[in-house]
Amino acid sequence: MKGKTPKKAELTRAKIVDVAMRLFLDQGFEKTTMREIASAAGLAPGAAYYHFESKEHLIFDFYEITFQKHLPEAEKILAEEKGLAKRIAGVVKAHLKVSEPYVEISKVLFRIAADPVNPLSPFSKASKDLRDRNIEILRRCLQGHKLDKTLAAKLPELLWMYKMGMILYWLHDTSPKRSKTYEFVDKTSALVASLIQLSRLPVLSGFSKKAVDLFEAYKIF
Amino acid sequence: MKGKTPKKAELTRAKIVDVAMRLFLDQGFEKTTMREIASAAGLAPGAAYYHFESKEHLIFDFYEITFQKHLPEAEKILAEEKGLAKRIAGVVKAHLKVSEPYVEISKVLFRIAADPVNPLSPFSKASKDLRDRNIEILRRCLQGHKLDKTLAAKLPELLWMYKMGMILYWLHDTSPKRSKTYEFVDKTSALVASLIQLSRLPVLSGFSKKAVDLFEAYKIF
Repeated sequence: MKGKTPKKAELTRAKIVDVAMRLFLDQGFEKTTMREIASAAGLAPGAAYYHFESKEHLIFDFYEITFQKHLPEAEKILAEEKGLAKRIAGVVKAHLKVSEPYVEISKVLFRIAADPVNPLSPFSKASKDLRDRNIEILRRCLQGHKLDKTLAAKLPELLWMYKMGMILYWLHDTSPKRSKTYEFVDKTSALVASLIQLSRLPVLSGFSKKAVDLFEAYKIF
Repeated sequence: MKGKTPKKAELTRAKIVDVAMRLFLDQGFEKTTMREIASAAGLAPGAAYYHFESKEHLIFDFYEITFQKHLPEAEKILAEEKGLAKRIAGVVKAHLKVSEPYVEISKVLFRIAADPVNPLSPFSKASKDLRDRNIEILRRCLQGHKLDKTLAAKLPELLWMYKMGMILYWLHDTSPKRSKTYEFVDKTSALVASLIQLSRLPVLSGFSKKAVDLFEAYKIF
């Protein structure tokens, strides 16, 4: 660590990420160089490369920081809420809330990352570790609830797809403070929870099985 | 029409659209000027503006041409196929098939048009007329099939959302000749058709009503 304590290195990394996100927003992701990022962070020209291999790595750190920020709120909901709809809605809204200051940069990132083969896409191989940890939180939302057996194994991934859909809605929401998205999450979570409960009906088990098989065969992550 | 027969003007318009699409693909939408488009089409510098108000209008013509090209195949399916799944799949695949030569430009357009407030987005106000005609074809897919009453009014729009989803999958499909998307359309259409049939069960009517209300309140078009 070249004499730096891990703590200090971490702060420098966070500062670089913060400065980079502002530059990406102002002048675009493609046009911004690592040299400019270092300079804007008050560091020597090569310093950004000391901490990050590339601009892409910088964005992964941004994703990671956002994930870590939303964790305490997500944990709180999982500890306190019993109802399935509220657990799902709470976890999704926790992620949106910590992302609020970054909505504009998120729009820029969406344009870059919409293609699933782009490493920065939430569906990419490079995103697997973070995606798995997000899916794990959604798996925990389901704890304490009876589930159709076929559906149970795939539900966390399906809920993660639902969460991605809510993020897409949030990105394009033009209502004041994006309040419409938060209402939409509450209402769709209630619908999703009732669908999960309905899926235990024998009449729907054939449908559930087909839907799950299809998801598994054609999912893009 | 300045002495031109409508037929000739139409051919010139189609030629301009064709040339423009190639330029957008090669050098990007933003960077391409109307002057360059005219020149590449072998016309006088101002000629592109004689036929099109702006680059955006050019893209609307491209959408319209694609729609018109897929119509005969869609009509054929509606006349010949009785089964709900095959009618839906056939209409969706007809649109994909005529779009095959334009998949690369469609990826470029997707990046521009992903935002629903962008006039070029399929969800925009400016796209309403074309969207309504596409929704009308999906309404006709449902003819001759018994539907849950609550769902019936909104199903054509929901099917159109489903079609948009399939186009998104197609855009990102890396399988040879995008054959995976065509299979996926067949299988998801079967699932959608069985869900439409299941929705007539009394146990699901509450769910259908809530889902339709939510769609109506939060849809982005």
